[in-house]
Amino acid sequence: MTASNTPSLHSGLRAVLDGRWASTRDQVRAHIQEAGLVPRAGVPLERYRAEVLDQMRAMVPMGFPAAGFPDAGFPERGGPGDPGAAVTAIETLGYGDLSLMVKAGVQWGLFGGAVENLGTAEHHERFRQGLIDLDILGCFAMTETGHGSDVQQLETTATYLPESGEFELHSPTPSARKDYIGGAAEHARWAAVFAQLITAGPEGQRTDYGVHCFVVPIRDDNGDDLPGVTTSDCGYKGGLPGVDNGRISFDRVRIPRTALLNRYAEVAPDGTYSSPIESDNRRFFTMLGTLVRGRVTVGAAAGAAGRLALTLAVRYALVRRQFDGPGEDGEELLLLDYRTHQRRLLPLVARAYAFALAQNEVTAELAELQSQPPGEVDPDRMRRLETMAAAIKAGHTDLASRAAIEARTACGGAGYMAENRLPQIRDDLDVFTTFEGDNLVLTQLVAKHLLSAYAAEAGELDTAGWVRFVAGMARDVTLEKTGVRQVIQTMLDSSDESTEDSELSDPATAVRLFTAREDHLVRTCAARLRRANEEDVDAFEVFTSTQDHLIKVGQAHIDLLALEAMIAAISELPESPVRETLETVRTLFVYATLEQDLGWFLMHRFISVERAKAIRRGVNELCGRLRPVAGDLVEAFGVPEAALDVPMLTDPAFV
Amino acid sequence: MTASNTPSLHSGLRAVLDGRWASTRDQVRAHIQEAGLVPRAGVPLERYRAEVLDQMRAMVPMGFPAAGFPDAGFPERGGPGDPGAAVTAIETLGYGDLSLMVKAGVQWGLFGGAVENLGTAEHHERFRQGLIDLDILGCFAMTETGHGSDVQQLETTATYLPESGEFELHSPTPSARKDYIGGAAEHARWAAVFAQLITAGPEGQRTDYGVHCFVVPIRDDNGDDLPGVTTSDCGYKGGLPGVDNGRISFDRVRIPRTALLNRYAEVAPDGTYSSPIESDNRRFFTMLGTLVRGRVTVGAAAGAAGRLALTLAVRYALVRRQFDGPGEDGEELLLLDYRTHQRRLLPLVARAYAFALAQNEVTAELAELQSQPPGEVDPDRMRRLETMAAAIKAGHTDLASRAAIEARTACGGAGYMAENRLPQIRDDLDVFTTFEGDNLVLTQLVAKHLLSAYAAEAGELDTAGWVRFVAGMARDVTLEKTGVRQVIQTMLDSSDESTEDSELSDPATAVRLFTAREDHLVRTCAARLRRANEEDVDAFEVFTSTQDHLIKVGQAHIDLLALEAMIAAISELPESPVRETLETVRTLFVYATLEQDLGWFLMHRFISVERAKAIRRGVNELCGRLRPVAGDLVEAFGVPEAALDVPMLTDPAFV
Repeated sequence: MTASNTPSLHSGLRAVLDGRWASTRDQVRAHIQEAGLVPRAGVPLERYRAEVLDQMRAMVPMGFPAAGFPDAGFPERGGPGDPGAAVTAIETLGYGDLSLMVKAGVQWGLFGGAVENLGTAEHHERFRQGLIDLDILGCFAMTETGHGSDVQQLETTATYLPESGEFELHSPTPSARKDYIGGAAEHARWAAVFAQLITAGPEGQRTDYGVHCFVVPIRDDNGDDLPGVTTSDCGYKGGLPGVDNGRISFDRVRIPRTALLNRYAEVAPDGTYSSPIESDNRRFFTMLGTLVRGRVTVGAAAGAAGRLALTLAVRYALVRRQFDGPGEDGEELLLLDYRTHQRRLLPLVARAYAFALAQNEVTAELAELQSQPPGEVDPDRMRRLETMAAAIKAGHTDLASRAAIEARTACGGAGYMAENRLPQIRDDLDVFTTFEGDNLVLTQLVAKHLLSAYAAEAGELDTAGWVRFVAGMARDVTLEKTGVRQVIQTMLDSSDESTEDSELSDPATAVRLFTAREDHLVRTCAARLRRANEEDVDAFEVFTSTQDHLIKVGQAHIDLLALEAMIAAISELPESPVRETLETVRTLFVYATLEQDLGWFLMHRFISVERAKAIRRGVNELCGRLRPVAGDLVEAFGVPEAALDVPMLTDPAFV
Repeated sequence: MTASNTPSLHSGLRAVLDGRWASTRDQVRAHIQEAGLVPRAGVPLERYRAEVLDQMRAMVPMGFPAAGFPDAGFPERGGPGDPGAAVTAIETLGYGDLSLMVKAGVQWGLFGGAVENLGTAEHHERFRQGLIDLDILGCFAMTETGHGSDVQQLETTATYLPESGEFELHSPTPSARKDYIGGAAEHARWAAVFAQLITAGPEGQRTDYGVHCFVVPIRDDNGDDLPGVTTSDCGYKGGLPGVDNGRISFDRVRIPRTALLNRYAEVAPDGTYSSPIESDNRRFFTMLGTLVRGRVTVGAAAGAAGRLALTLAVRYALVRRQFDGPGEDGEELLLLDYRTHQRRLLPLVARAYAFALAQNEVTAELAELQSQPPGEVDPDRMRRLETMAAAIKAGHTDLASRAAIEARTACGGAGYMAENRLPQIRDDLDVFTTFEGDNLVLTQLVAKHLLSAYAAEAGELDTAGWVRFVAGMARDVTLEKTGVRQVIQTMLDSSDESTEDSELSDPATAVRLFTAREDHLVRTCAARLRRANEEDVDAFEVFTSTQDHLIKVGQAHIDLLALEAMIAAISELPESPVRETLETVRTLFVYATLEQDLGWFLMHRFISVERAKAIRRGVNELCGRLRPVAGDLVEAFGVPEAALDVPMLTDPAFV
């Protein structure tokens, strides 16, 4: 059974959501369907892991892994590769099994991305083809038990020994062990290891040049740890049973000088350090920046899994009846006919639309920048992409996690049964808010970029230094912000300026409100941070007391990015039922977002009491208006039927 | 290591939280500690289930199971049993393993409670001792695949056959199968089965007298299904791996006439139906009402598990350092020194205090009413207990589930490792918001009781009927509400009436605000429902369009109950650091609750813009004020150390 009633509507919506890499999506959808790639419960770890590795091998001939790399593997593709297709393929695995998505992302995205973006020709020659074909299995050994979010403080050291021309890799303390590393428990033979690079400074003194990445063999062909390497298994986790997360410690392991991925730094045989980027801090952030693809991919895949969860819940709500209905026939009402049930699912569906469209923009920008020769990328544009990637990763994974929890609950007891898959989706998704940048840390990062007007130098400062930097900025930061894109500006220019009098269904009004919130938050946050200029005021103390304000700046920006993406996508459509439906979805997104933060808007008099009441009513009305097309809205996500083949949607005991 | 710094403070706080059944709590704590009852990951279902059954057997000699029944098992206890101790013992298992808690709750609370409260002497004689001692293993077969929340619509039939003096138990459709039944997959030999009782009416016609409960054997001594009974296994779920949930279908199974638990209804050998309660509806709700203990227990145990999760997260935040600190020594800051980290955990801790105290009140009232002879219980008081039990179950399980999710996230990668137990706690807790009454349904129930001024007749009506009932009530429902308890009234009488001028730290001001919100919501909701009086208006349509308003009524009442309980508990304490700390906790609960719904308070002008801004600042300040005693606040929960013995708190790699 399908819950959709208007094929032309949902196929039109799907075309909008699928965007530029629609054919890649369709190929991966077909593959999920054929191979039955769905999350399973109760499979022992070893078996699950082995099966996921087999599933990866089956994907190699499809070409997606190679598409992430220039000139690699499939010469008929030629040229600079197709990073957008590579990201979109992994994203679409979110409609299948996130264990596969993560393990594939680690191998091709993170390990492969480190070798590709931080290494040079010699490394590409040595590793590229093998890691695409899975002859070389790698892992990405950045996080340590002691440090996850604050990567600059990693403790692992790589000390250069000029006498032998080698680095000595070492974990000096228990907290220096690499932890939670996907692939490290079992399958990885190689690791991209992040460590403090130590060598003689210009005057011969032992100098720490900060975190660099090294490609290091960790296991022999039998899978045994190499001498000096100790791996262990994280065992069961809150989800992702098909990913073999593990730990790695190094006990004075010697690796050749060429193990340093040396695009941004080189150590000469005599130990002399050189880099095209002088500042250790800026070099570090430049290196991290090249790894942005992982963050983009994780946000995208979480979004897909969130849409899967919403599809399951909406379909269930369209077949499941409970309690007495209005009719004389005594037929019970469908769950989705209840206002409260609409309210718990449809605003999430609307938000999923907004973020899917914003995610497409991030992927496109990433594809654009990563198709350019590294030297030619505009660093400002790169910083903006990093901010956008951080914002959409935080917003999209947060949404997906909430959607999975709500979907489980909205399906009641059936939702708690593993056979209906919602528990696994919830469990697998949970850590997406943590890895590839904890969402709270990322939201602060977004706010920091906004407040320091994307100034490159701000990235190099510690907390207190950054506070003093912002406090010292004479200019008004809001004026320095990136100008809005043309389509939004045109819309604003041709619309009524008074937000209170104009309709909230008018996108210009919505943009004005979202922008006003962000601007106000940025200005007042900057004003609070400027207190750090006063005498006897501790900059760190100022930071701590302003931290929740800072988070709110980031959150406001995340909402605005999603809104702008949705408006831009709609603006390209001709008048049609598809466009009309998307406008209603956008309006629900706007109303629900405003309702979520109504206290703030009222407190700061951006919304009147009357309008506030209208917003609450409006969410109800919009839910009612979208109710008849709810099946189409989720059908448009294009989740493969194999992922939806669960008893609560098919067993006659339920439907 | 212990994170606590002031033993006298946390032991004083613990005494307040532990309340009347403190010794029961301590016994169960000691048992958890000795027996190492903690949730585990990766244990195969069969083994986990068998181990939990063994753990139940080990509890029998401790006397808690018997305490739930009058005169049973342990004659030295004598008298009417000790239902408060029975509930508190099961509650405290929430500090251990929720699988054990649920399986124990099903056997002694639900199955035992059905036999005890719905059966008569013959049933007590036949089953009581055996089910206490686990010689008789039972399950509680109420929910069906087709109907969970709406129990009156169950499809299973029990048709009386006067020719043989038996009932024929039957599942007429696929959706009539009993589903999600704890114990039904494997261990239960008996089931308390809820089914539509059908027998000849006064004029000989086939009549359905509504849902009744029957005690039915389902398996033989070898564990094989009895003839006509088909059980199956729900398999893996979103959590609770130690509970063997299953399904049961009946194919014209004959059971003796005496299988009917006949306290509230009897079928004579000739098939004549009789009951002391004439209305089918009222009888049904009376029977359900006697089962309120299950709902109380589930809320209480979820609360305990939520406190366990918060203890893990707060302790971690008190040992884990990350990012640069303010000092010159470069020492990183503890997580709990960050304002955002305080904000994500401490308001939940404050709410956990409020609900723990409210839960104690519900348990005490339950113990009081269930110690009275059934015939002497004041039905009004019983209805109020049912409302309070529904309210606190919804509020407490919702809080616990949110706390577990937040605790997992706040512990980052470590929180996702099964070895640190937060994923299992989150998974096990998840379904507590669904079973024993879906929280959304319960919240509506609370609101319905308030709006119909607890009128007994309101319980008998269907949705449209109830709307018309409320619409037709001439009196102003808010005046009919139960008077507040004396301690609150005295406090209100002696305090300033103007909420805007008085401090929010003044509990009278807080009560006035919470009460004003509830009253306003009740009045305006009643006004909206009265539209059903107008001509051409469909009562069901009115209900649907008012449903989100109704939910808000329920939520406001839940908050008020928790606040009142906290004020009452504090009022009994002498001036002391314990009292002072609890007052700060209460104030944080008040501020955080107001902040959560600031939009509403502003919109309805119960709070000025200035006060609203002060509330946001106030949450920050109160978090800062509680930061130094945060360790004591969770130490006071008294979670056994065995439950906290996890690597992230003990392994030198972390701390």
